[in-house]
Amino acid sequence: MLYHVRMDVLIPTDMDADKVNELKATEKALSQKLQEQGKWRHIWRLAGEYSNFSIFDVESNEELHDIMMSLPLYPYMKVEVTPLLRHPSSIRDDDS
Amino acid sequence: MLYHVRMDVLIPTDMDADKVNELKATEKALSQKLQEQGKWRHIWRLAGEYSNFSIFDVESNEELHDIMMSLPLYPYMKVEVTPLLRHPSSIRDDDS
Amino acid sequence: MLYHVRMDVLIPTDMDADKVNELKATEKALSQKLQEQGKWRHIWRLAGEYSNFSIFDVESNEELHDIMMSLPLYPYMKVEVTPLLRHPSSIRDDDS
Amino acid sequence: MLYHVRMDVLIPTDMDADKVNELKATEKALSQKLQEQGKWRHIWRLAGEYSNFSIFDVESNEELHDIMMSLPLYPYMKVEVTPLLRHPSSIRDDDS
Amino acid sequence: MLYHVRMDVLIPTDMDADKVNELKATEKALSQKLQEQGKWRHIWRLAGEYSNFSIFDVESNEELHDIMMSLPLYPYMKVEVTPLLRHPSSIRDDDS
Amino acid sequence: MLYHVRMDVLIPTDMDADKVNELKATEKALSQKLQEQGKWRHIWRLAGEYSNFSIFDVESNEELHDIMMSLPLYPYMKVEVTPLLRHPSSIRDDDS
Amino acid sequence: MLYHVRMDVLIPTDMDADKVNELKATEKALSQKLQEQGKWRHIWRLAGEYSNFSIFDVESNEELHDIMMSLPLYPYMKVEVTPLLRHPSSIRDDDS
Amino acid sequence: MLYHVRMDVLIPTDMDADKVNELKATEKALSQKLQEQGKWRHIWRLAGEYSNFSIFDVESNEELHDIMMSLPLYPYMKVEVTPLLRHPSSIRDDDS
Amino acid sequence: MLYHVRMDVLIPTDMDADKVNELKATEKALSQKLQEQGKWRHIWRLAGEYSNFSIFDVESNEELHDIMMSLPLYPYMKVEVTPLLRHPSSIRDDDS
Amino acid sequence: MLYHVRMDVLIPTDMDADKVNELKATEKALSQKLQEQGKWRHIWRLAGEYSNFSIFDVESNEELHDIMMSLPLYPYMKVEVTPLLRHPSSIRDDDS
Repeated sequence: MLYHVRMDVLIPTDMDADKVNELKATEKALSQKLQEQGKWRHIWRLAGEYSNFSIFDVESNEELHDIMMSLPLYPYMKVEVTPLLRHPSSIRDDDS
Repeated sequence: MLYHVRMDVLIPTDMDADKVNELKATEKALSQKLQEQGKWRHIWRLAGEYSNFSIFDVESNEELHDIMMSLPLYPYMKVEVTPLLRHPSSIRDDDS
Repeated sequence: MLYHVRMDVLIPTDMDADKVNELKATEKALSQKLQEQGKWRHIWRLAGEYSNFSIFDVESNEELHDIMMSLPLYPYMKVEVTPLLRHPSSIRDDDS
Repeated sequence: MLYHVRMDVLIPTDMDADKVNELKATEKALSQKLQEQGKWRHIWRLAGEYSNFSIFDVESNEELHDIMMSLPLYPYMKVEVTPLLRHPSSIRDDDS
Repeated sequence: MLYHVRMDVLIPTDMDADKVNELKATEKALSQKLQEQGKWRHIWRLAGEYSNFSIFDVESNEELHDIMMSLPLYPYMKVEVTPLLRHPSSIRDDDS
Repeated sequence: MLYHVRMDVLIPTDMDADKVNELKATEKALSQKLQEQGKWRHIWRLAGEYSNFSIFDVESNEELHDIMMSLPLYPYMKVEVTPLLRHPSSIRDDDS
Repeated sequence: MLYHVRMDVLIPTDMDADKVNELKATEKALSQKLQEQGKWRHIWRLAGEYSNFSIFDVESNEELHDIMMSLPLYPYMKVEVTPLLRHPSSIRDDDS
Repeated sequence: MLYHVRMDVLIPTDMDADKVNELKATEKALSQKLQEQGKWRHIWRLAGEYSNFSIFDVESNEELHDIMMSLPLYPYMKVEVTPLLRHPSSIRDDDS
Repeated sequence: MLYHVRMDVLIPTDMDADKVNELKATEKALSQKLQEQGKWRHIWRLAGEYSNFSIFDVESNEELHDIMMSLPLYPYMKVEVTPLLRHPSSIRDDDS
Repeated sequence: MLYHVRMDVLIPTDMDADKVNELKATEKALSQKLQEQGKWRHIWRLAGEYSNFSIFDVESNEELHDIMMSLPLYPYMKVEVTPLLRHPSSIRDDDS
């Protein structure tokens, strides 16, 4: 099942640089693992903003929640979740 | 180049049913043609709302605009456009 | 799977009274049928407003969407959908 | 009498981890006690957010207020209270 | 029990003047009857706006809702309901 | 003359507890003195929120301002002021 | 006593032109009479918008309200009222 | 040329009192100097809020900007600027 | 002097097509005349929206206002005006 | 391709003055280099605010993003990006 998630990352400007880089590295590694598993189907960067639009393909609301809570950057995120479904006009067979 | 577009469709409730159906049919046909051309890469329905999130893959802002203006339902839409780019964490080679 | 839906009903004040009553009657009948099926688990009225909070228990985003689109009053509604999951503090075994 | 409450928890990211866990533990214990008493009738987690929708069944506005003020996490919450009543379409006899 | 209600009245500018006056007259009569009963404890006009702040003293959310729905002007109102309780600093014995 | 004031109190969660209690005590004492003088006519607590709706009966905008600025908790408040007048439907002779 | 009022005028685009001109003429005449009386102390046009900021000098909230309700364009206005007082830095003796 | 400026002052509650008083004193002195020069034509306090509405009479957008940037309290302000012009109904000859 | 203006055009969907085209044609002609005069320095279309960002170079707030009021499409516009000035980092000598 | 970007700069008031000046200097130098390259086509200051409207002329969303991320002041900015295109009424041949 598909979910659209907007994530706005707001890292305190006075946070220790090493900690920030470590957070980002672990976030990237986890994201890529979830992408390989097909859970995190799409992730795009919003031009000019430290934000992304992502499409998750998971079994349930629970699974989406667990994934979000597992993200190292989660505590520094504003999150907006929108449940999606296949659009009647869609011609793709991999968009549901 | 990728653009994220949110379209909220607000058709007047007192509009003639035949006209509405005709608008929807021509909208669907045009959308599917653009999808076949690869311009309209993704379209998802927001659960519970007469709205969609779409991802367009076009050459320029102009091309996106011309597409939007060509949609039969455009006059009945509230539109939000967000330019996207490939995310540094993305592992897909077809998401830029 | 659970979804929280807020529905604000905005019926045009100049709509024919009979049509309004008919819409409301068919809406009520459909809602009660869905409640009997266990799909529409809860529906509460917001004090002082022509709005409701509802909890749906359905298999997927698609099923939620189909239900919403089937509601006679849907064209006159503003809808907000929030996917839910069981809360780690919940002691009820029928709240997921 | 029923109240719908949205609670968004915003714990400072630089708070001591032990204190956070202690707050969460006492919050959970109190919540479960109130659920056992039937005061806190429902609590659901919003997918992807550190927030919940709850339904309280209490005698009065005062009782609701006292409960909210007693929550260990209250100082870190944004709260929205909406008084509810039985919906005329509801078929459940335990939803008022 | 006390409720604070803000009512913003938005009567269509092209509505027949007689109908408007009749609505206002019946609204006033009903309001005054409810005030005499002690249900509608306070009603104040917002300076410069066709709006009021009211304080209702009723037994329950249901009773508040029934009163609001009975108001002739209700279909032309935007309504905001806030449940109240006695303030710990209040010295009045008639403000709860 | 009457004014409706909404006060949302936002005390920093890391403020010294003794200072907070002292602020609250002096605030309460001042509020009660002003209530005795008839300046602060009503104060109600919003259920579930550290906020109040108050009705002030003062001679002028200046007097209202001076009172607000004198409140110990003022620096920690978000304030919304709405000038009121007697409502044409009001039957009370002490609501203006 | 001073009040700051923002008035946004929203005249339906399909209203009869003569009626519009007549409304505007009577509005202007009334405004100028009130200015001569010193009630309507200032009126400025917002550049690019069919709106004004006005400063009223009246005895009470009631008087402000009566003036606003007497304006021919009132039914077509969105109004925001803010009570003012002399600023401690003001050097003018005619700004309170 | 006239500009309407709203200034909301938000001084951190933990700022050193002497520094605050010094800032306020220099702000007042500068404001009064600009008023004497006729640049800062009006300044009013919003009742109940640490905010002001001001009317500036300056030669250009640049001059307004330079004045705002020169204010000691500027770093602690939220500012809203609206360009004004003489209103066609105004009877004053000193309001443009 | 420079002003940034956002114009969102909202033409009623049931307006007569000929009238719409005529409005658009006269709007375009007037806009181009003002551009030739150097008053309307820039006009850009927002991708996907029937809106524009424009930069006007005029002598005063008044002149900007008169231009806006002269636009045939003005009655169907939502307008936002922001006064600009040369940026200290700008290297262009034609951007003030 | 053109992009309209609004940048609101919010530097913490307690940041070390030297660091602030250094950030501003490097920001200015980078901005001017990008202007010389024709990437940063326009930059205007909003009168009274520490904000700018800029027009970028770049090849793609990616390039815009990289530029924004390279700005020393970026961590202290709130950014709004709007893709633009040539307006059909524009008479300039250098505004696309």
